[in-house]
Amino acid sequence: MTARIIDPAEVARSFRDAIRGEVAELGAPLTLVGFLSEDGGPSKTYANYTRKGCDDVGIRFDLRQVTRLEAEAAIEAANADPAVHGMLVYYPVFGTQQDAYLRDLVEPRKDIEGLHSFWARCLYGNRRSYDGGKKAILPCTPLAVLKLLDAAGASGPGDAQPYAGKRVVVFNRSEVVGRPLASMLANDGAEVLSFDIDGPLRFVPRGAGVRHALEETSITRADALAKADVVITGVPSRDFELVSARELREGVVAVNFSTLKNFADDATEVASAFVPRVGPMTVTMALRNTLRLTLDRD
Amino acid sequence: MTARIIDPAEVARSFRDAIRGEVAELGAPLTLVGFLSEDGGPSKTYANYTRKGCDDVGIRFDLRQVTRLEAEAAIEAANADPAVHGMLVYYPVFGTQQDAYLRDLVEPRKDIEGLHSFWARCLYGNRRSYDGGKKAILPCTPLAVLKLLDAAGASGPGDAQPYAGKRVVVFNRSEVVGRPLASMLANDGAEVLSFDIDGPLRFVPRGAGVRHALEETSITRADALAKADVVITGVPSRDFELVSARELREGVVAVNFSTLKNFADDATEVASAFVPRVGPMTVTMALRNTLRLTLDRD
Repeated sequence: MTARIIDPAEVARSFRDAIRGEVAELGAPLTLVGFLSEDGGPSKTYANYTRKGCDDVGIRFDLRQVTRLEAEAAIEAANADPAVHGMLVYYPVFGTQQDAYLRDLVEPRKDIEGLHSFWARCLYGNRRSYDGGKKAILPCTPLAVLKLLDAAGASGPGDAQPYAGKRVVVFNRSEVVGRPLASMLANDGAEVLSFDIDGPLRFVPRGAGVRHALEETSITRADALAKADVVITGVPSRDFELVSARELREGVVAVNFSTLKNFADDATEVASAFVPRVGPMTVTMALRNTLRLTLDRD
Repeated sequence: MTARIIDPAEVARSFRDAIRGEVAELGAPLTLVGFLSEDGGPSKTYANYTRKGCDDVGIRFDLRQVTRLEAEAAIEAANADPAVHGMLVYYPVFGTQQDAYLRDLVEPRKDIEGLHSFWARCLYGNRRSYDGGKKAILPCTPLAVLKLLDAAGASGPGDAQPYAGKRVVVFNRSEVVGRPLASMLANDGAEVLSFDIDGPLRFVPRGAGVRHALEETSITRADALAKADVVITGVPSRDFELVSARELREGVVAVNFSTLKNFADDATEVASAFVPRVGPMTVTMALRNTLRLTLDRD
């Protein structure tokens, strides 16, 4: 078997077509504000992707350069500004726990990346709506992974539990990507084994509409990978032992959202589909969140 | 000069007398819940201190042992339980960024440690009341330091800006102690130089009722200490070079809130007052916050 390679830019295109149509139907233009406190690096690249995505769907993008000490007041001003429909903060700003403070300083209704703890609480509790029926925002990178898994044919039929019976391994349990991703998949029916430097945890599905459970486990990487239908990696370290063909099941769906390579080249010889990167879909999901939050405004 | 040694247990006693009186006047008993996920270590010690403090003032203390995976649901249950008036989570639970998630999961009105980002936003913005006139809760360790500074004679007269004209150095800029402490002092009039492994930052006062400003600075430790009226340390590392007499001004007020020694023995030869530890006051301030939050309940 040779894996079908999924191009995230191509999957993004159809979503952007839909977003462009909906944006055009709005009476007024949408404005997204980005706060960039670094020169160059991955943040600058992400900001450039955001601008391209905004241009593509007809959303105005206002990129504001701020020092790390200006970020706090700049976010508060954007929170209060009715002309700002959504905002993105390009982290790291401080590169310390202070960044978590900034993340929760963004007004949730303008948090198009879905990183605020308000949204995390909805997700972890499997509460899919808020405020009497509005659909809760999902964090844009994990959501991008889910949409790419759909495109790769990893999900089953049925909206309620599309991952029922599936086994998923995720390498990364950060609060911004790995943990929300594992939670989303478990809420959708998958049994997820989540690995990070602190060891493995099991996310156990408990049926449609019920929040998943968490269990300690001592399963090894080898045992987890040998049974996995889906393997997702997001390890930002060159010390990570690349996931290789001999560890994987024939027909596995493989996704890498790290900016580093996490799979060995031979992984595509056993995988049915391989998603080598997620970036373009992340921006697209942020634009989709912008639209959703705007349409749900009171 | 030989420093007056301030005993935090003694300062705590007068606060506890006042709390005991107010608790006795309440119609119904108060219950505090503690969540402990570790066996032994500093968390267990802090829990023991909490029990002693509660016993002393007549508050019921219910210590609940939870695994790290049970903590989330346990906090949510306590949030929803009207019989719980306040709660304390003894960190670390996960020892990762997931602990920040738990910290913000605690309902702010039951967060007697004042660690929730709701309270941090009040503090950093110098908003001293919320919800139409209720007094905002301050985080209990920085508040304990402030009360001990009062006892040490470091604050000047006047309630509005008791630290006007004072120069303070703080070693530690964590989101839970160092940064809130520097903010409180700057809101109260002090110019604060805050040092941590990322270097120094200056917290600049801007007058009563106005939030402080932040400035980058390249000032050295030596220059900062040479002019300091107050020096506060909270460095949890044995690699920290102890603050010694030759670095300090005659008459300085010195406070250590780290569990490690951060001052050399000779510091007491130049200081006018020395606070060697803060612990007993921290618990007392948490009890005071419990009472305040209960009295301010709707």
